[in-house]
Amino acid sequence: QGILERLDAGEIVIGDGGFVFALEKRGYVKAGPWTPEATVEHPEAVRQLHREFLRAGSNVLQTFTFYASEDKLENRGNYVAEKISCQKVNEAACDIAREVANEGDALVAGGVSQTPSYLSCKDKAEVKAAFRKQLEVFMKKNVDFLIAEYFEHVEEAVWAVEVLKESGKPVAATMCIGPEGDMHGVPPGQCAVQLVKAGASIVGVNCHFDPDTCLETVKLMKEGLQSAKLKAHLMSQPLAFHTPDCGKQGFIDLPEFPFGLEPRIVTRWDIQKYARKAYDLGIRYIGGCCGFEPYHVRAIAEELAPERGFLPEASEKHGSWGDSLSMHTKPWVRARARKEYWDNLKPASGRPYCPSMSKPDGWGVTKGARELMQQKEATSEQQLKELFQKQK
Amino acid sequence: QGILERLDAGEIVIGDGGFVFALEKRGYVKAGPWTPEATVEHPEAVRQLHREFLRAGSNVLQTFTFYASEDKLENRGNYVAEKISCQKVNEAACDIAREVANEGDALVAGGVSQTPSYLSCKDKAEVKAAFRKQLEVFMKKNVDFLIAEYFEHVEEAVWAVEVLKESGKPVAATMCIGPEGDMHGVPPGQCAVQLVKAGASIVGVNCHFDPDTCLETVKLMKEGLQSAKLKAHLMSQPLAFHTPDCGKQGFIDLPEFPFGLEPRIVTRWDIQKYARKAYDLGIRYIGGCCGFEPYHVRAIAEELAPERGFLPEASEKHGSWGDSLSMHTKPWVRARARKEYWDNLKPASGRPYCPSMSKPDGWGVTKGARELMQQKEATSEQQLKELFQKQK
Amino acid sequence: QGILERLDAGEIVIGDGGFVFALEKRGYVKAGPWTPEATVEHPEAVRQLHREFLRAGSNVLQTFTFYASEDKLENRGNYVAEKISCQKVNEAACDIAREVANEGDALVAGGVSQTPSYLSCKDKAEVKAAFRKQLEVFMKKNVDFLIAEYFEHVEEAVWAVEVLKESGKPVAATMCIGPEGDMHGVPPGQCAVQLVKAGASIVGVNCHFDPDTCLETVKLMKEGLQSAKLKAHLMSQPLAFHTPDCGKQGFIDLPEFPFGLEPRIVTRWDIQKYARKAYDLGIRYIGGCCGFEPYHVRAIAEELAPERGFLPEASEKHGSWGDSLSMHTKPWVRARARKEYWDNLKPASGRPYCPSMSKPDGWGVTKGARELMQQKEATSEQQLKELFQKQK
Amino acid sequence: QGILERLDAGEIVIGDGGFVFALEKRGYVKAGPWTPEATVEHPEAVRQLHREFLRAGSNVLQTFTFYASEDKLENRGNYVAEKISCQKVNEAACDIAREVANEGDALVAGGVSQTPSYLSCKDKAEVKAAFRKQLEVFMKKNVDFLIAEYFEHVEEAVWAVEVLKESGKPVAATMCIGPEGDMHGVPPGQCAVQLVKAGASIVGVNCHFDPDTCLETVKLMKEGLQSAKLKAHLMSQPLAFHTPDCGKQGFIDLPEFPFGLEPRIVTRWDIQKYARKAYDLGIRYIGGCCGFEPYHVRAIAEELAPERGFLPEASEKHGSWGDSLSMHTKPWVRARARKEYWDNLKPASGRPYCPSMSKPDGWGVTKGARELMQQKEATSEQQLKELFQKQK
Repeated sequence: QGILERLDAGEIVIGDGGFVFALEKRGYVKAGPWTPEATVEHPEAVRQLHREFLRAGSNVLQTFTFYASEDKLENRGNYVAEKISCQKVNEAACDIAREVANEGDALVAGGVSQTPSYLSCKDKAEVKAAFRKQLEVFMKKNVDFLIAEYFEHVEEAVWAVEVLKESGKPVAATMCIGPEGDMHGVPPGQCAVQLVKAGASIVGVNCHFDPDTCLETVKLMKEGLQSAKLKAHLMSQPLAFHTPDCGKQGFIDLPEFPFGLEPRIVTRWDIQKYARKAYDLGIRYIGGCCGFEPYHVRAIAEELAPERGFLPEASEKHGSWGDSLSMHTKPWVRARARKEYWDNLKPASGRPYCPSMSKPDGWGVTKGARELMQQKEATSEQQLKELFQKQK
Repeated sequence: QGILERLDAGEIVIGDGGFVFALEKRGYVKAGPWTPEATVEHPEAVRQLHREFLRAGSNVLQTFTFYASEDKLENRGNYVAEKISCQKVNEAACDIAREVANEGDALVAGGVSQTPSYLSCKDKAEVKAAFRKQLEVFMKKNVDFLIAEYFEHVEEAVWAVEVLKESGKPVAATMCIGPEGDMHGVPPGQCAVQLVKAGASIVGVNCHFDPDTCLETVKLMKEGLQSAKLKAHLMSQPLAFHTPDCGKQGFIDLPEFPFGLEPRIVTRWDIQKYARKAYDLGIRYIGGCCGFEPYHVRAIAEELAPERGFLPEASEKHGSWGDSLSMHTKPWVRARARKEYWDNLKPASGRPYCPSMSKPDGWGVTKGARELMQQKEATSEQQLKELFQKQK
Repeated sequence: QGILERLDAGEIVIGDGGFVFALEKRGYVKAGPWTPEATVEHPEAVRQLHREFLRAGSNVLQTFTFYASEDKLENRGNYVAEKISCQKVNEAACDIAREVANEGDALVAGGVSQTPSYLSCKDKAEVKAAFRKQLEVFMKKNVDFLIAEYFEHVEEAVWAVEVLKESGKPVAATMCIGPEGDMHGVPPGQCAVQLVKAGASIVGVNCHFDPDTCLETVKLMKEGLQSAKLKAHLMSQPLAFHTPDCGKQGFIDLPEFPFGLEPRIVTRWDIQKYARKAYDLGIRYIGGCCGFEPYHVRAIAEELAPERGFLPEASEKHGSWGDSLSMHTKPWVRARARKEYWDNLKPASGRPYCPSMSKPDGWGVTKGARELMQQKEATSEQQLKELFQKQK
Repeated sequence: QGILERLDAGEIVIGDGGFVFALEKRGYVKAGPWTPEATVEHPEAVRQLHREFLRAGSNVLQTFTFYASEDKLENRGNYVAEKISCQKVNEAACDIAREVANEGDALVAGGVSQTPSYLSCKDKAEVKAAFRKQLEVFMKKNVDFLIAEYFEHVEEAVWAVEVLKESGKPVAATMCIGPEGDMHGVPPGQCAVQLVKAGASIVGVNCHFDPDTCLETVKLMKEGLQSAKLKAHLMSQPLAFHTPDCGKQGFIDLPEFPFGLEPRIVTRWDIQKYARKAYDLGIRYIGGCCGFEPYHVRAIAEELAPERGFLPEASEKHGSWGDSLSMHTKPWVRARARKEYWDNLKPASGRPYCPSMSKPDGWGVTKGARELMQQKEATSEQQLKELFQKQK
């Protein structure tokens, strides 16, 4: 059954987690560029991560094609052996995802994300061409549906949806925005409306913000669609980091990004609360993004097991709400084998010299520099450096 | 070259990270029992984790045989298909470790850990028999050397070393104790002396405490050996969690154990500081335990690259001190591409409603119950439950 | 010169600090009732506090008549010797304030605050009668101007202003509301408009929220007045506690109120920042409320000394930005004798087992109970108790 | 009855609180020099503070003669009108204390503290002369007993005790040290022994550390006396700040000292716990030092009311364990009117951008500089500045 058949029938569809962060920690992706050449260089590592998500309960395996547009791979990829072409990276990603999907009953979704071409003000045709190049691979490899994800500007997201719709396959579209809207100031409700009008059957958010903030944003999208009398399925794939302190541009601007985010990692219990809230809000495509490990996906599946009627395979190694601790030698650890305990725990950081919140340091940059960036006028590296130096 | 040749020559040997925690998050190990039947059930998952550690710079791959003594597997393993024998688990662990070790130039170490038999007051012969059963597999599979690790009582650790020494192979011994010493009150210095006298060539600590606390304990061991005019190599494999607030029994007693430890996870920079301190203290076998992911091992290898003269393979996907961020689009993120930035960052938790430290909740149990446990007199489950209930 | 002459001339007027909190700590006011019978019982204690505020730079001494309406004194005052009449308390307050004001050049302001009569749904005439009773004393004692302060409902505040205007003296009116507006949901801008239309020449906020939040609220008032093309002077007398986590009803609902607020107390440097921001926002009557000690008032006066051209008397015992530390024996303490140091300090709490924020516990009460309270329908003690019990 | 009669009879004697910090906030003492010329300049302010402590339950009023030795007043006092002699300051302090003591039944204690003469290596005769000069005033004014307090070096404290003993009056001696001992490394137990041998009848600690740390230190003193088979009464007058993070030299070295200590201020409930622990440890002279406000002293008196059989006068304005809140309008505030609530509250700081602990910044100074200071060899300002600059 395809993605729309499932959602139309009222099923809960569980997404997967975050590839670039998980594979960075495992040693296969470079922070900064965040490009997915590992599909060619280390297919076994990518395959294993897919498998873990599948086992944890994912119904969709996204091809590991984040930032795999040709312009991005060229732009950032000077450290990657030249011989790995954009096509090869995308093809390998499709093959691996399909291989693992076939081990269960998961769907394969081909994904595109925002492009350097757009940010450097290339025209619509050029940006669309970049998406079309990836789409060709997805068609050849016959993925089940398509996702346009991680867009900061609804304009570019709409272009992506338009290209993906050419395929005739179902299209989902998620933006990496918060309640304040896209980088040009378009509010979430309007973003959702534009995406649905462009052809997306599923809309929502992914990345950049923590689960609570993402749900708030999806709620605004939902309200926007209702006002416009449009219908679409809702989707949410947030960070697995607590980011109550981030500004409009999300966790990128937090001083901890990307190498000091550990104290912000959410627990499995945080995710169970997120899954429940997402469900209550009417979201039926529920997954995660950066920081989401297999056990976080399992937490979604466990929380919604009553609604779905089954547990994921990985639950054979996990007791509901900590009940495997009932076998522990120490009585005070056995006393933790209950929902109430974990539900109420306020976990300590073990870091008394650290604060609990920090100021996004993008704010430390001149308003001028930020605005230039946002208006896509800062094409010149040199120009930005100067602005930044002036500020310091 | 064997482990002792390397250490005797003054080489730094980098250990691996934590299997049970990493595989729990990946969906293959059950928290509570923490047993390694995944070597038989999901060899590909175990293999992949070994590979990641190898790639991150590990010179030793420990067989995934933690808690794989027969008594433990029986005791806790009621959820495991009966057909998986202790022997099979241990054999598969050896095969997988050797297969991956051969992909590089790593050594394979067979490991034993504390047994339920000892805790339930079985006699010396019985406890030794449990170790010998695992040793037989290690001999058959011809591991390169042996590690007795995760012992809370030096008495049992000595028994383990005595058994392992029967093999003629080099033996390392690490206890999961802090500066206060073992559960019977034997101080670290004396523990080290007893272990070396029993035949261990390498001594130190693993698990239960954070890097700083472990180094403090190893320092006491070093001083104990010096006083006794004994020589041994030093080894340290701490948690990758900050635990300044834990009591004598380590992180088990923290309220966050084991499902709410996320905010305590150490960063790669914390590990670089640990590696440097460990080196300065004279420790030459430097690795990690629970919570240590491949990127933590890579951080050891990167910190000590000047001394060793080379970087691990995984550093192809990692810039020293964040320098891969110099390619980022946002100037304020590029400004993070330097050592001083990450060295001084006090990472926020994003959890303003949580404290930074917590009280070990073992203290919430009556002193009587704790002492019973420590004196191994609490054989009866029922007896413990009653004590605990009384307390609450 | 009267209050309006000063403000009209563009002068900065510095208010005083918080009496009930300071005198509670000194032993003369009871938390809970918060009534000011100390003016009769312990005039020397009240006089000394007035003197300290005067010395710290206060240009206005408010009579200590908070909660000194007859209904309040009766309602809560069962622990006070019966012989102390409402009239006596108010008269003594006026005499003490005038005595100290004459030691400098401060003005005396007679103050009224919200009444139990209003909360228990007495009619307009009855509520106004309560204010009029206090006003009679203020007229007899010839205070310089009048303040209607600490009102949660603009309706009652307007009644108070109407009564006070009968005197012909200038009237200031401050509400204890945040940006969300009064307890009936009237936004700050509209509250300001109503108060000015009722006759207030000075409007703003006092109590219930921290300096930042209060400034936000006054900003909304200012915008409301501008939209309505009304003119009034602005006034701000916030808490000296950090309360970023409080809800609509302010710090009363924080679990720390009133006996665990210590970790929230603001520093003198926080107040200097507040004074600067208030000034920049166009506020010219700048003071404080609960928690404001004399040194906080001095901090306002020191921050605005460049604009005013003089320092308060108490600055003879205070160096600007810590410069008195330049005489310290320890070089590292001397190194703190500079603005940059204190400006950037993030002061630690010394409380690693405590969180940095907490949830207002009014939210723990059923929405029903809260609404009843807010709608003034919960006259019956019994009814409230039942609702609360049901909730727990 | 004299101090020793009371203590010998097993009575609890409640000390007073901190003058320099309280009067700094009220505007009468300058931070840095911390000298008590206010006794002459503003006797009414000093008198009022004495009165508040008396009312709160203090059985002893200490003359406000802290740092009132001639060398100190000269050394630091360049901002004080020249005409105020050391003698005048001390005489006025005695007169004020006696006046207020007579309003109740409190004793007056004349106090001396460490001198610049000692720190700048003057000889024993010179240092003793400084104490003797103050003692002459205390004898003339006939104080009830004498306290040598706030000594960092036991050598100087012994000299002080020897001088005070010349009077024939009872002598108490408290040092501002922690469990690590005095600045020359003499452990607390030995300090106590030396002080008792020099003639002190009461020994203990004051200032520099929080209540818990002070009790730990007094415990070590008690053990030292027991080992030496000496008898003395025990005394404790700690800070009212939480300082778990301070080093050997106490709160002076914390970055927050002295103008950012607010988040560390202890609650009344913290003090009740302290009073109980102090009592259980056998301490019978229980008071406070810097940061202790009248309400903190009241908390000692309330906690120990069952043992003493009476409440202090100030308790007429304070309900036990918050019971005055039972009169509050809001049911959720009324729910705080119970011991269990306040006993378990973990008060939030309202400062999510601040850490819970900080590093003493004396540690930031070179070890060389610290040692010089401690060895009294750093007489030259210039020399210290250079060391400090080098360090930065």
